Amino acid sequence: MHVVVTGGAGFIGSNLVDQLLDDGHTVTAVDNLSTGSLDFLGKAISRSGFELVDMDLLEEAARFRDIVRPADAVFHLAANADVRYGWDEPERDLRQNVIVTHNVLEAMRVTNVRRLLFASSGSVYGETTVIPTPEDCPFPVQTSLYGASKVASEGLIQAYAEGAGFCSTILRFVSVLGAHYTHGHVIDFVRSLRAESTVLTILGDGKQRKSYLEVTDCIAAMTLLLEADGRGEVYNLGVDQSCTVVESAGWICERLGVRPRFEFTGGDRGWIGDNPHIHLDPTKLQSTGWRPRYSIREAVERTVDYLVAEPWVLERPEARAAP
Amino acid sequence: MHVVVTGGAGFIGSNLVDQLLDDGHTVTAVDNLSTGSLDFLGKAISRSGFELVDMDLLEEAARFRDIVRPADAVFHLAANADVRYGWDEPERDLRQNVIVTHNVLEAMRVTNVRRLLFASSGSVYGETTVIPTPEDCPFPVQTSLYGASKVASEGLIQAYAEGAGFCSTILRFVSVLGAHYTHGHVIDFVRSLRAESTVLTILGDGKQRKSYLEVTDCIAAMTLLLEADGRGEVYNLGVDQSCTVVESAGWICERLGVRPRFEFTGGDRGWIGDNPHIHLDPTKLQSTGWRPRYSIREAVERTVDYLVAEPWVLERPEARAAP
Repeated sequence: MHVVVTGGAGFIGSNLVDQLLDDGHTVTAVDNLSTGSLDFLGKAISRSGFELVDMDLLEEAARFRDIVRPADAVFHLAANADVRYGWDEPERDLRQNVIVTHNVLEAMRVTNVRRLLFASSGSVYGETTVIPTPEDCPFPVQTSLYGASKVASEGLIQAYAEGAGFCSTILRFVSVLGAHYTHGHVIDFVRSLRAESTVLTILGDGKQRKSYLEVTDCIAAMTLLLEADGRGEVYNLGVDQSCTVVESAGWICERLGVRPRFEFTGGDRGWIGDNPHIHLDPTKLQSTGWRPRYSIREAVERTVDYLVAEPWVLERPEARAAP
Repeated sequence: MHVVVTGGAGFIGSNLVDQLLDDGHTVTAVDNLSTGSLDFLGKAISRSGFELVDMDLLEEAARFRDIVRPADAVFHLAANADVRYGWDEPERDLRQNVIVTHNVLEAMRVTNVRRLLFASSGSVYGETTVIPTPEDCPFPVQTSLYGASKVASEGLIQAYAEGAGFCSTILRFVSVLGAHYTHGHVIDFVRSLRAESTVLTILGDGKQRKSYLEVTDCIAAMTLLLEADGRGEVYNLGVDQSCTVVESAGWICERLGVRPRFEFTGGDRGWIGDNPHIHLDPTKLQSTGWRPRYSIREAVERTVDYLVAEPWVLERPEARAAP
């Protein structure tokens, strides 16, 4: 297959590109390199069957039509991917996530490319009380601009499935960890502990429960679903576990060999719209035969090891500090 | 209260304006008069405490800030309101519904206006199998660009409730009928029967079940919820009934005194993304004490009477024929 990966220089995208090339596909990565990095495509860039197109999906919608025209399938991963900073610039999620998704869908429609897989998020469940959360839990109430932008994108994709005959699959990720990881609490904690190893500031009360998926397990699920026959079919992507922020902070400290005092900013959540308990039900994904190789703890530890081995990732100017 | 009504010259908006003025509120109607009509504001226009602002919420976002600044509450009704024609121009619902809703929310946020009521739609439920459909039915799959644009708008509004302290109420309407009604199957059938009374073409197989609400019942619910304290709280607005398209066609013919032969275009739905069975559960709305005055049949009959009394509505160039 010829597969287009939007956000192909990003964390998940670059891992996906490598796997798709390993599987024998021709791959075009599209990325504006705003948060993605050429360094993540070091292996791919010299391989035959790979092309990187540096372009902006918001501003260059027409150009994307020419890129997508020869493709058999699109993984649409390009997005503002950080749930925490929506209120700094309330248009960002609308533009980078909703309008860009619309541009991708329209480009595919007019060029008759009909297979789409979309990186959505467990944040679309807002603060559901059904935990572990299945895909068909009660109609949720959104709590973040990021979640709202993802549920909006899902709706557009499902409408295109119904009205324009798209074969589309929606993947609701928990937080993903591993090689090429660039933002989230693990990098924040590692960065903080390298600067000052005697104290670690934790947003909220540290009792928030979260779920994490190791990126190779994530990629295995994504490539498994590449040829799925859904019309807006939704899958949760996560392990059947959760951990508290304090637990993961403890694993990170142990891995780094430091014993800081924990300080808490207080409250039951880390930021506006933070969901204090995330644990997605992976039963539907498991029905395809997929099983994760790594536990949450192993995912956290592998990420710490990656950041220690690749300290330049900690220094990237694009990597934003937590507020 | 000073209330801004976007889409205030439209079908539901103009009825709402009249009621708000009757209730003693100051009202600013905002409308670009693309599908709304000055004729619907004939009573309001001469009353004190009323102002109409002819402006476009998509193109004039900054101007809207000045309009909304003195307001206590906003009813956001401006939208592309026809679910049937999404695929003629796939950007329309995104622009007129999602981006305009974002513009309204941002204008309210920066001017510190915090009370919003939003006209959503039962189309957000897609083809749910739970009928009558409660507000917390299983996470739906979208089937139309219109429904997708409404669920996207709902999500944005809920995110602003959580993140910017909005007091907001989301109203999911069934199809509304009555005075100032300008598009939908009743006007299509009346127009068709005036041109040719011996045959009536019905989209689909005529067995689609739909639900309708008389506009005065709709307005009563909307004004009742004006001071509600929700944060993205959702209410279905409909009667606890449905009828088939053939039944409503029969009532329309009887009211007009014609006996056409019915012809069917076939299939179980009228257009791409049509939901063949709509019946919203109004239990939550009824818990506020609201009760409808009119049955579905009475709503249909009152609409036919309105169109017969005001035949100019049938001739408006904006009124689109069914495909």
